[in-house]
Amino acid sequence: MNLNFASDNTGPVSEPIMQAILAANHGGAMPYGADPAAARVREALRGLFRWPEAEVLLVATGTGANALALSGLVQPWETVFCHRIAHIEEDECGAPEFYTGGAKLTLVEGAGGKMTPGTLAEAMAPVGTKGVHGVQRGALSVTNVTEAGTVYTLDEISALTAMARDAGMACHLDGARFANACAALGCSAAELAAGFDVVSFGGTKNGCMAVEAIVLRDGAQGPEMGFRRKRAAQLWSKHRYLSAQMEAYLAEDLWLANARAANAASARLAEELRALGAEMVGQPQANMIFCRMDRAAHDRALAEAQYYVMDAADRPLCRLVCDPSKTAAEVDRLLELLRG
Amino acid sequence: MNLNFASDNTGPVSEPIMQAILAANHGGAMPYGADPAAARVREALRGLFRWPEAEVLLVATGTGANALALSGLVQPWETVFCHRIAHIEEDECGAPEFYTGGAKLTLVEGAGGKMTPGTLAEAMAPVGTKGVHGVQRGALSVTNVTEAGTVYTLDEISALTAMARDAGMACHLDGARFANACAALGCSAAELAAGFDVVSFGGTKNGCMAVEAIVLRDGAQGPEMGFRRKRAAQLWSKHRYLSAQMEAYLAEDLWLANARAANAASARLAEELRALGAEMVGQPQANMIFCRMDRAAHDRALAEAQYYVMDAADRPLCRLVCDPSKTAAEVDRLLELLRG
Amino acid sequence: MNLNFASDNTGPVSEPIMQAILAANHGGAMPYGADPAAARVREALRGLFRWPEAEVLLVATGTGANALALSGLVQPWETVFCHRIAHIEEDECGAPEFYTGGAKLTLVEGAGGKMTPGTLAEAMAPVGTKGVHGVQRGALSVTNVTEAGTVYTLDEISALTAMARDAGMACHLDGARFANACAALGCSAAELAAGFDVVSFGGTKNGCMAVEAIVLRDGAQGPEMGFRRKRAAQLWSKHRYLSAQMEAYLAEDLWLANARAANAASARLAEELRALGAEMVGQPQANMIFCRMDRAAHDRALAEAQYYVMDAADRPLCRLVCDPSKTAAEVDRLLELLRG
Amino acid sequence: MNLNFASDNTGPVSEPIMQAILAANHGGAMPYGADPAAARVREALRGLFRWPEAEVLLVATGTGANALALSGLVQPWETVFCHRIAHIEEDECGAPEFYTGGAKLTLVEGAGGKMTPGTLAEAMAPVGTKGVHGVQRGALSVTNVTEAGTVYTLDEISALTAMARDAGMACHLDGARFANACAALGCSAAELAAGFDVVSFGGTKNGCMAVEAIVLRDGAQGPEMGFRRKRAAQLWSKHRYLSAQMEAYLAEDLWLANARAANAASARLAEELRALGAEMVGQPQANMIFCRMDRAAHDRALAEAQYYVMDAADRPLCRLVCDPSKTAAEVDRLLELLRG
Repeated sequence: MNLNFASDNTGPVSEPIMQAILAANHGGAMPYGADPAAARVREALRGLFRWPEAEVLLVATGTGANALALSGLVQPWETVFCHRIAHIEEDECGAPEFYTGGAKLTLVEGAGGKMTPGTLAEAMAPVGTKGVHGVQRGALSVTNVTEAGTVYTLDEISALTAMARDAGMACHLDGARFANACAALGCSAAELAAGFDVVSFGGTKNGCMAVEAIVLRDGAQGPEMGFRRKRAAQLWSKHRYLSAQMEAYLAEDLWLANARAANAASARLAEELRALGAEMVGQPQANMIFCRMDRAAHDRALAEAQYYVMDAADRPLCRLVCDPSKTAAEVDRLLELLRG
Repeated sequence: MNLNFASDNTGPVSEPIMQAILAANHGGAMPYGADPAAARVREALRGLFRWPEAEVLLVATGTGANALALSGLVQPWETVFCHRIAHIEEDECGAPEFYTGGAKLTLVEGAGGKMTPGTLAEAMAPVGTKGVHGVQRGALSVTNVTEAGTVYTLDEISALTAMARDAGMACHLDGARFANACAALGCSAAELAAGFDVVSFGGTKNGCMAVEAIVLRDGAQGPEMGFRRKRAAQLWSKHRYLSAQMEAYLAEDLWLANARAANAASARLAEELRALGAEMVGQPQANMIFCRMDRAAHDRALAEAQYYVMDAADRPLCRLVCDPSKTAAEVDRLLELLRG
Repeated sequence: MNLNFASDNTGPVSEPIMQAILAANHGGAMPYGADPAAARVREALRGLFRWPEAEVLLVATGTGANALALSGLVQPWETVFCHRIAHIEEDECGAPEFYTGGAKLTLVEGAGGKMTPGTLAEAMAPVGTKGVHGVQRGALSVTNVTEAGTVYTLDEISALTAMARDAGMACHLDGARFANACAALGCSAAELAAGFDVVSFGGTKNGCMAVEAIVLRDGAQGPEMGFRRKRAAQLWSKHRYLSAQMEAYLAEDLWLANARAANAASARLAEELRALGAEMVGQPQANMIFCRMDRAAHDRALAEAQYYVMDAADRPLCRLVCDPSKTAAEVDRLLELLRG
Repeated sequence: MNLNFASDNTGPVSEPIMQAILAANHGGAMPYGADPAAARVREALRGLFRWPEAEVLLVATGTGANALALSGLVQPWETVFCHRIAHIEEDECGAPEFYTGGAKLTLVEGAGGKMTPGTLAEAMAPVGTKGVHGVQRGALSVTNVTEAGTVYTLDEISALTAMARDAGMACHLDGARFANACAALGCSAAELAAGFDVVSFGGTKNGCMAVEAIVLRDGAQGPEMGFRRKRAAQLWSKHRYLSAQMEAYLAEDLWLANARAANAASARLAEELRALGAEMVGQPQANMIFCRMDRAAHDRALAEAQYYVMDAADRPLCRLVCDPSKTAAEVDRLLELLRG
């Protein structure tokens, strides 16, 4: 029984993905992305996103996918608009700045981890008005599922990406939890990706070992991104083990099934937590819950289970995340511990 | 039957390592290097290198290990001395320049892919003599096994690292084939690492899936390297799958057994190739062979097998590499094809 | 009659400084900072700041001074705390990010362009709490005179620098208008520099042609900064013309006399503008005035004079700056135009 | 009497240029390149180079001009081909690597500081043949006058630039001594610039105080270069003093007259040195002489004069440079000292 609710990345590798890794061990393949499975993955993602010209590059970390994606969109004297709590701002130790050669991030406000047309407009207004003295508008980066556990609707996203396009900016989707957003919205991958130029399509948090796809709508950007990936030391020699993960993840919509499982476990957990008197902080819409409960409940639970307690209040803020493997029994046991 | 002799990285993951990956799938672990196996790996490498204060950081690519290692050793206005055919110069698309913020590589000559005290002195002489106008001496980077398939002796290495230290430079070992060098020299890991400040200790080419250890002799450099690794997007969330690989690789000296197997297969192949009239280019001392044979022989072999043919001569230069999995039957079949 | 009030850098070079440039034209001098005047400038600034161990490097632009200064204080994975409207944030097109290898700027709020202990604490609180995932606290950068035309008191500054030091951060003073701040506060240069590790000591805006001094309290940082300056292409070959400017600027306290003249002209202008019904935006404490007046007045004035009109309101916000050369007649003529 | 023969940058500012600086002091001008003289300089250089669409950006240092020029031509994963002794390689402390985000320089051999089609072909051959693993061909940078004091003929240059263009590379001319090369070849500026995409047109070494023009043949590159210049902290606020220098330098062909004077002084000095038994190292073709003479002669001369002695041989190699101000009397006095 795995009572680790700290992050989606504390969960195991899904069985079909592990089997694919094992299968990749038989028969050699040329290295560095020349494996046949890499081409199959590209075709699968072209189909999934309905981007027939797309190019796909696999890397092992979400930070790598985001930083590479952004480095292809902005010049060093430009800025990336993103939410104040975006992963690229708070959790990547400056990787976007490193990979872009020192571009800025301009922080956009918004409740529940979501930018709005209003807050984006406010952030954009002064940028690019000072000639060579100020940095220029470069790109918009949206995270869906957000870091607050909320999910942008398709309309909310298209409002933001339309504003960016009108201002001449390219659009990036940090899709570390792309699948959970699709599952939450009940939309297709193509619908979620619409309006973006590049998507960081996550696998690691949703049952893979370590694989993320950089999906470039305009495949002509592929060769340059190939140099960037190699130069950033993100190109695997035994690339077939990345391909194998992603291929199995896409096959028979495992990505979606996993996300549905994680979201469902989280929804049930949230419901029961509310029943226990927990105060939700924002609406948990995918597989992350932010809430406050009595310290005593936490103390009981954390003796056996794991999740993040984020402040020192009497009813401290905690974050609970369900990865796709979370069983009803595991959720029940956690609730039992909290109840005392 | 795997007749791919193009590179060590076309081979499979060794069985004990794959089993360790499977085992890591049971029971959660905290992410980002906080898994218990990471600490065990550090202890194992401290013991192996006899560096009791060492710090260890795992990454997935050799280029990542090298570029991170160098970024901790040199300032942007310094230069790294390395052989003209070093991997960091020829095969990393400028990753060292990227990670170091634009430091230079100063190329050192030397037959058989090996620098000598004489050629190193020649390269060092003009560097650092021009005040602020020229870049400064930063670090020495030695590759063992070299890219030419030769192996530096312990004495050869200590002559070079002593020169570097006398000039105030730190020393880096690109040990992508560290194990093959140990096996070739019959020395211990500690003997091979002696004189260096940082070692890129390779696993991927020698039976792992994707894992390399940056081993810092002075563990006090660890925290800074931790920021560098994260910022470079080289820190895995599901780090336990890196730890599992490296732990299994070190257990019961699998690293050495694998290298011995690869070197032995290569030695037999080289001997038979000579018997077939192949002309060796340099002495194959580990698991890489560079030689010339008639084009007709290559045409026959490459219909079924794979290796690199590197020029267009009548007797073209080719590179054949044995990974640890290469069986006698596979070597025999390749020879059969070449014989026609 | 020079009716350009757009910026301090629209004014001429003060006569003693121009004479020093002419004098430097006689007799050769070794290049790249080996001129005897460079050493005299260093001694003068050591005395002025009462920093007996200081090292001094001259460059031609304020952005260069700031970006170099910061590059010596922070690592690429650290952040610089500065006010939201700091010149390094708004007016340097990302030069700090470029020179530091991609460090962040963390923006601090505060009325009138001034950070307070409260707003600084708020900005600092979340930084450095996320282990390797977030950027680390690097340095504090204070601008005095601020970009809003206000002046920090010595007590206000020491409260901020003490907080930074307690948090292990170095402190940088953007002193593009250092002299105007001294003149406004009636304090010594040493008092204004107290608490800082590096000062960008401005000359260009205050009667020089193009010279700024990077003053490093700890002279041991000098050699590294020497490499940084050269590598950033900020080291003049004919350095004696930089030295000449700075030497004349420091001689007989010309720097202070110039600033007093500029501040006095500005004070009189502000007083008369108020009498004309202008609404001050913030308190003009040095040589910059931000105020609102009827559009008609602006239209009359801008037919002949120059200053920045910064928005499109009926009573638009405008910025008027007095450089040291501004005469009473010039101020009178501007007022006459505004009055109509 | 100025007996400093160490470098062209030990000489004074030519009188017409100093007068232009003085004249620029009267009447304000808008800052940051918005001065009217900047536009006049652009027109003058468009005419001189016969590049009607050219854009011109002024900076204060030659290293700045070179590094900015290259940063606009190459991607970080590309390389710049240049001679082994090029200024960008030996004398800029890695500024090109800094400004380009870590591009490489690939060193080309060649006697007398000059690349040849043969040595360039040799250097180019392996570059770009390794897919994403190696850096790509980016640009060619030619220095004329070379660092060895020799001058490429127009035919020699066009052979090199044609090779570069055929390989898809852009071409940069480091024209720190552009004028001396024109004077030596008796060609026009337009002829010398032909075949290049960007020229670093030097002023500082040839009688200016501190000004170099980046001349972009394709003016459409101007806006991007404007951001690069600002971000690199190379944009002067009081830009009119850069414009004034360059305008006076171009007026009435002062640039050419100065270069002719410097070359003539150097030619006479070389002739007399030969008569004194000096052994020329390479042919002095412009205003730099490399030669060997008895140590005793140097000892006598250096008691009063200045130049660089570059090795410790009995007949040490020395470098003597004539700046445009060198008079016959000064040359005579130096010869007198050498004769003893």
